[in-house]
Amino acid sequence: MIIIGERINATRKPIAAALEARDSQAIFRTAREQLQAGAHYLDINGGDPRPAREAENIAWLVETVQGSVDVPLCIDSANPQAVKRGLSLAKHRAILNSISLESSRLGPLMPILEQSDCMVIGLLMSDQGAPAGVDDRLRNAEQLIKKLTAAGRKPEDIIIDPCFLTLSVDCLSARAVIDAIAAIHKEWPKVHIGGGCSNVSFGLPRRRYINFALLAGAIYHGMDTALIDPCTPGIMATLYAAQAVAGKDEFCMNYVTAEREGKLV
Amino acid sequence: MIIIGERINATRKPIAAALEARDSQAIFRTAREQLQAGAHYLDINGGDPRPAREAENIAWLVETVQGSVDVPLCIDSANPQAVKRGLSLAKHRAILNSISLESSRLGPLMPILEQSDCMVIGLLMSDQGAPAGVDDRLRNAEQLIKKLTAAGRKPEDIIIDPCFLTLSVDCLSARAVIDAIAAIHKEWPKVHIGGGCSNVSFGLPRRRYINFALLAGAIYHGMDTALIDPCTPGIMATLYAAQAVAGKDEFCMNYVTAEREGKLV
Repeated sequence: MIIIGERINATRKPIAAALEARDSQAIFRTAREQLQAGAHYLDINGGDPRPAREAENIAWLVETVQGSVDVPLCIDSANPQAVKRGLSLAKHRAILNSISLESSRLGPLMPILEQSDCMVIGLLMSDQGAPAGVDDRLRNAEQLIKKLTAAGRKPEDIIIDPCFLTLSVDCLSARAVIDAIAAIHKEWPKVHIGGGCSNVSFGLPRRRYINFALLAGAIYHGMDTALIDPCTPGIMATLYAAQAVAGKDEFCMNYVTAEREGKLV
Repeated sequence: MIIIGERINATRKPIAAALEARDSQAIFRTAREQLQAGAHYLDINGGDPRPAREAENIAWLVETVQGSVDVPLCIDSANPQAVKRGLSLAKHRAILNSISLESSRLGPLMPILEQSDCMVIGLLMSDQGAPAGVDDRLRNAEQLIKKLTAAGRKPEDIIIDPCFLTLSVDCLSARAVIDAIAAIHKEWPKVHIGGGCSNVSFGLPRRRYINFALLAGAIYHGMDTALIDPCTPGIMATLYAAQAVAGKDEFCMNYVTAEREGKLV
């Protein structure tokens, strides 16, 4: 399981404030909390509509985080300038979050990908918008994996984000995404699958239960990457429990070890 | 979804004490709490190794519960005398919990089943013991459904309990049971599937997360009956969330209504 901590994101108020004030202590804390909770990667999002400013934000966040903790990063932007800065400053092999089939994203980001050895999240969006069912997700996955492979990525360097949609808008959308995960996992067993899925529960009460049920179903069918807030109570326990139930945790050792390390809180 | 509250069970100390003292107030409370939490049926287990005493216990429990609340019951025993007493006293159409392919259970209970119109839980145990995989569960389900159909049960009156085993003993056992649920649901779409699954997490820390992940996976694949303690924090929210994620809750109405009724606490 690849767990990417999502909290260092400038669209979140505390991070926007920390960025504005160049408050490195606040960023240190957010980085350390997520690592303690069990994140393997930290997402870095500089969220500013002005490309040059976003690139500056990303650069400052990357250097600040790396000045405090030793962790690989996930550079979260569709802005080529910001992505380039972030990747070039990352000490460890980073993940680019994300490319897609949208020509506005694919065109500018592909050359960067060809010059970097980063891992990459491939979001199954296209110029036709978000996929709705299983078949269009499979078609998009095939196209995207082909392009990423041509750009030098091995299957194990690719993380397909199946595009998690909002359940309250379409009550069959979670089923479609889980069935698509199963189909993608069957067709490309070495490709990682996952992404940010908390918007599935948007608009519903007690969102965490919807998120947990979604994660359990998706992990059962092959999701192995999660962009989450690992500090949310119960979420790490849910991830480890879902893996154990899916038969992907021999002797339940990872689950029991995570408990011993205080990660199931 | 059929939710059966499991708390009125004489193998639990407070119920054993209430039975011993014929403390009907304690039984009332346990019945009401479960109904408030969202149970549709209440399981009644008189747990005594002496058949006549167990039958007496069941009779007292059935009459006591029915003296306080209006709810259908699930008569939980393999003792023909106790089952007969329980079914004959039940005001509403009850569930017999449970018959199986074990000859010690099948032989004595089948005649009772032929004379009653109760629903029935068919546990996939046989004289060969508990099933380990998908194929043996399917074989047992076929045999049991055939026998129950011959005894006058319609598919929708049968609840197949796939036999939930302990994950810490065999880390592939939850996967086997979930895949078996999918196969049984595909083959007999009108037959209900489910049972008590909390022993899946036996021996593991923070058992509720294992139980929640198991429920989410099983419900995704067709489980629609749960023998649980509905007062366990989070369990009702998990059941409703799992149904919504599985695409079985149009407009997420049941989930939202359950929240409004205070059942997702």
